[in-house]
Amino acid sequence: MITSKSNQKLKKIRALMDSPKERKQSSLFVVEGSRLVEEVPAELMEEVYVSASFEKNGVECIPCEVGYEVVSDEAFRSLSDTVNPQGILAVVRMPSSGMEKVLGADLYVLLDDIRDPGNLGTIVRTAEAAGARVILSPNCVDIYNPKVVRSTMGTIFRVPFAFCGMIDAINMLHDEGATVCAAVLDGSIPYTELDAEGAVAFIIGNEANGVSAAAAEAADIRVRIPMKGMVESLNAAVSAAILMYSRQGRGEDNGQSEDTVRGKLL
Amino acid sequence: MITSKSNQKLKKIRALMDSPKERKQSSLFVVEGSRLVEEVPAELMEEVYVSASFEKNGVECIPCEVGYEVVSDEAFRSLSDTVNPQGILAVVRMPSSGMEKVLGADLYVLLDDIRDPGNLGTIVRTAEAAGARVILSPNCVDIYNPKVVRSTMGTIFRVPFAFCGMIDAINMLHDEGATVCAAVLDGSIPYTELDAEGAVAFIIGNEANGVSAAAAEAADIRVRIPMKGMVESLNAAVSAAILMYSRQGRGEDNGQSEDTVRGKLL
Repeated sequence: MITSKSNQKLKKIRALMDSPKERKQSSLFVVEGSRLVEEVPAELMEEVYVSASFEKNGVECIPCEVGYEVVSDEAFRSLSDTVNPQGILAVVRMPSSGMEKVLGADLYVLLDDIRDPGNLGTIVRTAEAAGARVILSPNCVDIYNPKVVRSTMGTIFRVPFAFCGMIDAINMLHDEGATVCAAVLDGSIPYTELDAEGAVAFIIGNEANGVSAAAAEAADIRVRIPMKGMVESLNAAVSAAILMYSRQGRGEDNGQSEDTVRGKLL
Repeated sequence: MITSKSNQKLKKIRALMDSPKERKQSSLFVVEGSRLVEEVPAELMEEVYVSASFEKNGVECIPCEVGYEVVSDEAFRSLSDTVNPQGILAVVRMPSSGMEKVLGADLYVLLDDIRDPGNLGTIVRTAEAAGARVILSPNCVDIYNPKVVRSTMGTIFRVPFAFCGMIDAINMLHDEGATVCAAVLDGSIPYTELDAEGAVAFIIGNEANGVSAAAAEAADIRVRIPMKGMVESLNAAVSAAILMYSRQGRGEDNGQSEDTVRGKLL
């Protein structure tokens, strides 16, 4: 049992939780809590750590393929990002995230410098439900940030995503014949009037500054979400959800009805 | 200038920020930051406090109808809910929030025990843009919680909202002829197939438990948001946005095009 907070392994975990640079250099990140740890694909699982209390009470929930190490409750608390840690976390290898992972889809969401962890996590979660793939600009908040991982609710392990500059991504999507739409406040058409056959990609801009001028310029069309009242803008995750859901169920993979898939779970 | 952190006025402000009970008893709440303070309707403004630095640099931004008190920078920091306070806050009277405030609309969102402050704030923000009015069950997170107020982005002062038990609210909406739809995972129809003339109300359930059985029972119809993949549910604010936007622009007040209204701002 690890009892010292300054144990080298615990120090590494803390560094992986706190530092995007540390994550990038090692290609590892940390997921916390039973439900998230259960979602980790076996081939990406590196190490599992549980608190002494967790081992005592919940040993059957521990994924045992890689074994696990026990950490004293006090030392475990020093690791956790949450106030009441569940007592289980995993060190996980990052999945591949090149553009080849995402191309060939019917629906994409391009994130142009999304900075809020909760927004990014919620967009990834919504993307799975909408059947969209996610492309992240280099200045987005790190998708492996513990807050982002938590708010994806496990979908980070299932939704294909890639890191790519917006202009390069738009060019690749154009090569595929996709219609690229920038979501901007003064878009020339409301999203409800978008008349596109085939694949569609929506660019969602930074929370404060919106879609970058270069990306909006490279897009095929600028769409707006109509707004009543005096509200200045919608939340980025809300905008992404409204746009993705305007195309949900149009793609080819809809042949396998989502209702059938859901039926298994309900 | 107030310099003591234990000044009675500052103690009252802290209590209003921290305690739902204190807010309820006094019918007062606190808003922080220039943009939010500017949105406060004059008839609700009670008191304004600024930090010494804010007064020095930003005096022209202070709404002066009620006068203001200056607080030393150090004492002001002890008040603020944020890490880098802007240096201005207001004590504000709660607007009226009976059902008469909201009835007579084309679109409603009923919040059945929404507990996350960010979700509630985002739903209020989206409601203004969608032209919806908001009805909150008694166990929702307090709408006057500083985190909720902040995430409404000022829309809390413009969106009509009321506090009401779900069953009473549904009965009142039925008396108006509105179609009440409970958003549930196993709804009998997808929201896209909702065929309702006239007013529509969507019930959005608690983040963990969904719509309460009693409210779902009292609704006219149970609608679902189709989901692909293995995702278990959507974020509550995302669900509310998708449903509200499926009816955006259908109401009577759409005669005054939202685009005209927006045109003035852009």
